[in-house]
Amino acid sequence: MLVERVHFLPGVSPRPLGRRALAVNISDVAAMGGSPRAALTSLALPPSMTEQWLAELYSGIAEEAASFGVAVAGGNLSRTDGPVCIDVTVLGSVPKDQLLTRSGARPGDVLGVTGVLGGEAARRALAPADPEIAVPTPRVAAARALAATGRVHAMMDISDGLAGDLRHLARASKVGAVLYAEQIPVAIAARQAGHDLGIDPLSLALDGGEDYELLLAAPEDDWGELVAAVGDDASLYRVGTVLGADEGVQLERLGGNREPLPDGGWSHF
Amino acid sequence: MLVERVHFLPGVSPRPLGRRALAVNISDVAAMGGSPRAALTSLALPPSMTEQWLAELYSGIAEEAASFGVAVAGGNLSRTDGPVCIDVTVLGSVPKDQLLTRSGARPGDVLGVTGVLGGEAARRALAPADPEIAVPTPRVAAARALAATGRVHAMMDISDGLAGDLRHLARASKVGAVLYAEQIPVAIAARQAGHDLGIDPLSLALDGGEDYELLLAAPEDDWGELVAAVGDDASLYRVGTVLGADEGVQLERLGGNREPLPDGGWSHF
Repeated sequence: MLVERVHFLPGVSPRPLGRRALAVNISDVAAMGGSPRAALTSLALPPSMTEQWLAELYSGIAEEAASFGVAVAGGNLSRTDGPVCIDVTVLGSVPKDQLLTRSGARPGDVLGVTGVLGGEAARRALAPADPEIAVPTPRVAAARALAATGRVHAMMDISDGLAGDLRHLARASKVGAVLYAEQIPVAIAARQAGHDLGIDPLSLALDGGEDYELLLAAPEDDWGELVAAVGDDASLYRVGTVLGADEGVQLERLGGNREPLPDGGWSHF
Repeated sequence: MLVERVHFLPGVSPRPLGRRALAVNISDVAAMGGSPRAALTSLALPPSMTEQWLAELYSGIAEEAASFGVAVAGGNLSRTDGPVCIDVTVLGSVPKDQLLTRSGARPGDVLGVTGVLGGEAARRALAPADPEIAVPTPRVAAARALAATGRVHAMMDISDGLAGDLRHLARASKVGAVLYAEQIPVAIAARQAGHDLGIDPLSLALDGGEDYELLLAAPEDDWGELVAAVGDDASLYRVGTVLGADEGVQLERLGGNREPLPDGGWSHF
């Protein structure tokens, strides 16, 4: 659910808002290895919204759905005297033996991500009052290819930030993990924002969230096969290793020093 | 989507609110002839809500889901600085040749409803400031039995009121219709409220909404078979006849005088 003033600002353009509402849900289906099929959209709108605003929101929804072969199969429209709420449900299908969840990671697995991180956090840090919203590109093709190998133990999309989502994966899998600071692919925009604003680019990559890349755990021996499966659909970066549950979630700096992974991620509530 | 101050009042008890959020969606699946299977619940909650409130809401959701064999398969929780919003999606399944929609009614069909109407409207008319919310009983068994006969041409649940929903059905089926005022089953509570408040009980039955009985259109010759199919799961009342599109939607009073059906139903927006 996207809620005005929590997930987007009042002046946002409705078309990218609609596209984003679909994209983040398509990403969730993809992260389980699924092919997105149908979407249901439920809106609460204050009476002040214009018909044109609504029409553009639906255009964005329809556009994003169409580009992933998703049918907008139904929905609901309600009045509210509060902020705009947009709730989207995306249904998908997946061969039973290819379904991936957050649980299943095993000690010794490699941790990988499908793209650079921190770009969206950098954009927001540089222009916090800009109401325009980013439309992430869900990694549908890469996720399907990864799931189809049958080698991946656990997968999820990174919506809250690598640090927070790795904690979710570790908890669900009952494991620990270590991230290698120097191997985390930091977006160029995050390096630039770090320079301009005097903040650590790595913290934008770890805690910024909203990149919607995939985080996965798989045996080290299968890594080459996974890279080949993804092909040109995404890059695959090794960022860490799965540990035993008693080791917690750690960050290893250059030189080998380890510290507990700082907790700076997005809280939903 | 149920929105605070639009669909329920702030002081509502969370458990019946949760039950209702499921029930109205289960009713929608039933009205298409479907068996409800899984539910997804999405909430926007202001920080002022207590954990206990949330726990009771989820209890209500779980209770209602369990009583219809529905799995609560997922959901989402968001912050809001506005009213509580509860969006529920219920998924169901139906044999392809038994799927019923609002379109399909044909001139000459009998119009039927599965129970008395106006009871919930009467309750609200008698105690407009009472925040307690009614939990309708979705007609799942009756709807399945009706769909399985293969005789029903069109079906929907009556959420907005018989008058408004008959208009929806007539528009979708490209037909007209007449309701017989004397044959509409008016709830005893609506007769009582009508007497106490000096309002027409029939208008509560026609326009009050929220009864969640089924409205269906089927050939007159099959009526007996439908009554037998429903058995003890519900009563079946004949309330009207489907007409040609050019005859519009009418109300026939005792003695045979017809007038256009008054338009007093619920508007979503």
